[in-house]
Amino acid sequence: MMINLIKMRRSIRKFTPEKVGDEIVNQIIEAGIFAPSGKNNQPWKFVVVRDSGLKEQLSDMTHYSQIIRDAPVLIVVFLDHHQSYDYIKDVQAVGACIQNMLLAVSDLRMGGVWLGEILKNKERVHALLSTPEHFELMAVIALGHPAEKGKKRERFGLDQVIFSKIG
Amino acid sequence: MMINLIKMRRSIRKFTPEKVGDEIVNQIIEAGIFAPSGKNNQPWKFVVVRDSGLKEQLSDMTHYSQIIRDAPVLIVVFLDHHQSYDYIKDVQAVGACIQNMLLAVSDLRMGGVWLGEILKNKERVHALLSTPEHFELMAVIALGHPAEKGKKRERFGLDQVIFSKIG
Repeated sequence: MMINLIKMRRSIRKFTPEKVGDEIVNQIIEAGIFAPSGKNNQPWKFVVVRDSGLKEQLSDMTHYSQIIRDAPVLIVVFLDHHQSYDYIKDVQAVGACIQNMLLAVSDLRMGGVWLGEILKNKERVHALLSTPEHFELMAVIALGHPAEKGKKRERFGLDQVIFSKIG
Repeated sequence: MMINLIKMRRSIRKFTPEKVGDEIVNQIIEAGIFAPSGKNNQPWKFVVVRDSGLKEQLSDMTHYSQIIRDAPVLIVVFLDHHQSYDYIKDVQAVGACIQNMLLAVSDLRMGGVWLGEILKNKERVHALLSTPEHFELMAVIALGHPAEKGKKRERFGLDQVIFSKIG
């Protein structure tokens, strides 16, 4: 049941050195792009990074250096402003796309984590990856074969997040 | 396999008049809140609307009046600025939360659609639902038992969304 898989998904920050094939990466991105978007505008773009020199340079741009360095693959996610129609809805759609990718990672028994802290250096990431001006960095997904189980993160109860029920 | 369910999910805009119990609604929101968020800040809040008078008033605030009117339940999704830590990452997290909810809808053989066009009247929605100033309207999910199969929306190919593969 999908709801159980959604609740069992964990962020994985430690990876085995085993390589991750293109087929796996493509399946994960394919799941991502099936997210809905406003007017079906599909505002996402991706850069896939396996090069260790490049990963080393990216690792300098975030507090989470070790994860970036150790992950066999990074999927860098951008919002493409040439596809944009409404910024807030586009950012939501990118979030939905990333969530689909994380669920696919889990479904494929791979490990992955959504890294956002690197956004503080988005201009440096752009320069390094030679992405066009109209791309905006949204997140980096670190991906590999899991070397840990991951921790459960607590959630607020439904009574804390449902403000009201009317009718 | 979750990836297949992700790819098979359809937006459902037509519903039977059958009521939707609280247990179903709670399961859907529960799936939503298991989305990851930056620093696990869980910036989402929800209002559940079943009242027909209120639905009638909401239906006046969007082009998609018929969907709002016909859906037995609306789940109105907000970003809670008192829980916020970074606006863009919070909006992404809300997108991830909504996607989890839509997948849960599909998993439960219910029908639902993500409505964003009503954001043009977000102030009027706030006034109607008596939500606090620090809530920002993010989306309305119309929910019910499906009375249609839904249409497949085309997606760009992987070669169109993967900008580059490095290494």
